[in-house]
Amino acid sequence: MTSFPLSRRLASEALGTALLVATVVGSGIMADRLTSDPALSLLANTLATGAILVVLITILGPISGAHFNPVVSLVLAFRRAMPASSVQAYIGAQILGGVAGTLLAHAMFRLPLLRVSTTIRTGSARWLAEVTATFGLVFVILAGLRFRADAVALLVGLYITAAYWFTALTSFANPAVAIARSLTNTFSGIRPVDLPGFIVAEILGALLALLLASWLLMEARNPQSLTETEPAP
Amino acid sequence: MTSFPLSRRLASEALGTALLVATVVGSGIMADRLTSDPALSLLANTLATGAILVVLITILGPISGAHFNPVVSLVLAFRRAMPASSVQAYIGAQILGGVAGTLLAHAMFRLPLLRVSTTIRTGSARWLAEVTATFGLVFVILAGLRFRADAVALLVGLYITAAYWFTALTSFANPAVAIARSLTNTFSGIRPVDLPGFIVAEILGALLALLLASWLLMEARNPQSLTETEPAP
Amino acid sequence: MTSFPLSRRLASEALGTALLVATVVGSGIMADRLTSDPALSLLANTLATGAILVVLITILGPISGAHFNPVVSLVLAFRRAMPASSVQAYIGAQILGGVAGTLLAHAMFRLPLLRVSTTIRTGSARWLAEVTATFGLVFVILAGLRFRADAVALLVGLYITAAYWFTALTSFANPAVAIARSLTNTFSGIRPVDLPGFIVAEILGALLALLLASWLLMEARNPQSLTETEPAP
Amino acid sequence: MTSFPLSRRLASEALGTALLVATVVGSGIMADRLTSDPALSLLANTLATGAILVVLITILGPISGAHFNPVVSLVLAFRRAMPASSVQAYIGAQILGGVAGTLLAHAMFRLPLLRVSTTIRTGSARWLAEVTATFGLVFVILAGLRFRADAVALLVGLYITAAYWFTALTSFANPAVAIARSLTNTFSGIRPVDLPGFIVAEILGALLALLLASWLLMEARNPQSLTETEPAP
Repeated sequence: MTSFPLSRRLASEALGTALLVATVVGSGIMADRLTSDPALSLLANTLATGAILVVLITILGPISGAHFNPVVSLVLAFRRAMPASSVQAYIGAQILGGVAGTLLAHAMFRLPLLRVSTTIRTGSARWLAEVTATFGLVFVILAGLRFRADAVALLVGLYITAAYWFTALTSFANPAVAIARSLTNTFSGIRPVDLPGFIVAEILGALLALLLASWLLMEARNPQSLTETEPAP
Repeated sequence: MTSFPLSRRLASEALGTALLVATVVGSGIMADRLTSDPALSLLANTLATGAILVVLITILGPISGAHFNPVVSLVLAFRRAMPASSVQAYIGAQILGGVAGTLLAHAMFRLPLLRVSTTIRTGSARWLAEVTATFGLVFVILAGLRFRADAVALLVGLYITAAYWFTALTSFANPAVAIARSLTNTFSGIRPVDLPGFIVAEILGALLALLLASWLLMEARNPQSLTETEPAP
Repeated sequence: MTSFPLSRRLASEALGTALLVATVVGSGIMADRLTSDPALSLLANTLATGAILVVLITILGPISGAHFNPVVSLVLAFRRAMPASSVQAYIGAQILGGVAGTLLAHAMFRLPLLRVSTTIRTGSARWLAEVTATFGLVFVILAGLRFRADAVALLVGLYITAAYWFTALTSFANPAVAIARSLTNTFSGIRPVDLPGFIVAEILGALLALLLASWLLMEARNPQSLTETEPAP
Repeated sequence: MTSFPLSRRLASEALGTALLVATVVGSGIMADRLTSDPALSLLANTLATGAILVVLITILGPISGAHFNPVVSLVLAFRRAMPASSVQAYIGAQILGGVAGTLLAHAMFRLPLLRVSTTIRTGSARWLAEVTATFGLVFVILAGLRFRADAVALLVGLYITAAYWFTALTSFANPAVAIARSLTNTFSGIRPVDLPGFIVAEILGALLALLLASWLLMEARNPQSLTETEPAP
């Protein structure tokens, strides 16, 4: 928990989510305009998103924790790594910041400021992918905070780099980003009607990570007992 | 502020800006010659620029601060992170270095040494993109210096990697580089007549970052008062 | 050797190998669907695999050592860096985890859960490539543990990034991953009948690395004697 | 200077140069086979080379300094960072290792073990590019050793990543690698008759870097005198 007042922490969450979404949406538009190969578009989208995540988490982490993501705030409040009383305000700031990021990207690319997405992203396979992506993200954050707190920014950037490719057509793993992406009818969009399924999947993934972490990352309190659990050769 | 004499600090700024521009312009020419897919060209351009930034800031930062950018020198002088008396000389060295970088790139690729660019980069959307890109760059530098001074080189390299993609057709965020790029009629060029708009946008972006930083990054002096600003649960 | 009980160490090995294989197989499927250029597919595959390796080794290393690879476990047991009594269990967890990773990737991409691969990967050139790739991986791990234990995650990620390209059509360097990849008939598959040749090559490569390391990385115990081995100028 | 005996230092130089060249040549062959877009080939070549350089310098640096490059050994002997008596042996090991790397790459890709290259790389523009590339490499190493010795591996990897693109059609910046590449008639080859021009250019670039470094990186011994050189505001 940081020593910055709530107002600045909320500004940090809004700013970070805005720049994150502006990068995700903007780099998608840019890549789509420059090439007809969707793999190349996704590669550019991946590179830009991974890079900006490392930057934003490094510079805003000391102020607000740099969640930029409602499920991360919920999980950290549950683990008492942030005051529960701020969670609602954090989530509000993240959603507003995300929408502002979409607006900014559209303005920079001279597009109508908000357009409802028509990109279909639904079905059990997509939901499984989204559960997996969010499980991974939250587990990486919890394990990172436990073992290498100084490297969390890099770990999240690299994890999302991989997750863009191993889950079907870009993971979101983030309800605030998902909402912001429902307002762009470009490369990275998602139909508003598909949002609830994605958000439920994201919450489910986060819960799974929380559950696993509460066992796997638990302090190994009695090293003596370890040798007892080892089978004799 | 470093302990190196001004002559060496100016040489460092000129050398760094020259190698930065040679990389930006040179990798653009190279990529353009090798492929007909502009997304692939931009990807190569991004990779080379991000990589050289990390290198140059790491090795020349201890000598001159490694600004390579007039708005960065202005902002740091304003924040008293460098002597105001050196700013003019710094800016001169950066502009000369940048032009030398364009010359070097052209010579390596057997092109006429200087050619005025005809690439149109103007209009309110582009200016907004340039304000955003420079705002981000300056904010990343100020927040980086505040929280993770050892990581600024990496942060700037990664930020520019993202900014090449989320702002329309490569950000400049740097008046010295913009001037140098007006002298190449290749992938990364910009029409001289479009320079003033870009430079005004860059200064505006830097001022916005300075304004935000003076509030958001301010020392949290009285941690006790923090809990008071927290709403009760 | 960590202080975590065996049950959690095995869970860590299974989880890590599952996510590694899900990334290798999933990103291969994704890339293959998006582009018809196999170099671009391999580039995406490389990026995702390298990134997830750095993440998984960093966050699971403190629990189980993050081998995710039977030959690595064997080598480390031989070097007494893990208890020999756990090796069999480790290998079992890695193989089960790997197969689960293939299942997960197929489910996310709405493919039949298991399909036997028909991709031919055999012949002396391939075996030489696999010996080389595994030799390099094991040597990098042993030398990394000796000189820069904190950087092993990054070193392995970068090494595999290079090895995907310098050995013929993606290296495996890992029997558990090879088995898991025999169960996917997609971009990254390998025919089951080609497995034995690959696994023998991997063991050979690991032995070569072990042999070299036992001489090259040996403690330089008597620095005085060094100067004696230097020829006079 | 390390405390390892000369025999192991030479083995380290030979091994490192062999793996470096195997990666440069191997990834070039692989990429060329997979795609018809030369920019994509160079991108893969760049990624693999940059990654393996970071790995090899990190793990072999503590043994032999990880030069893998005759001009680097010459420069470091001149700066008394290695014993002059070992330079000849180092250069021999590097050249032999490089040729072995070409052999290994050819064997892995089932090509005739040695084939004389027919790729023309000559002319003043190329030589200028090679002077620039080697100047940059040697300056990066000297400045890195001076200010951030722990980061030299990363700096060299990133520098070469950029230099592959900003100098005309891949820099060599390394006589041992250039010789090894004259023996492959693939993507990364160079005609033997063009070698002397390249090697002269490399030595020239190294000398320029040495000259600049001896002034620019010189210890700033008397900080008081600094303020005197500052013009009054």
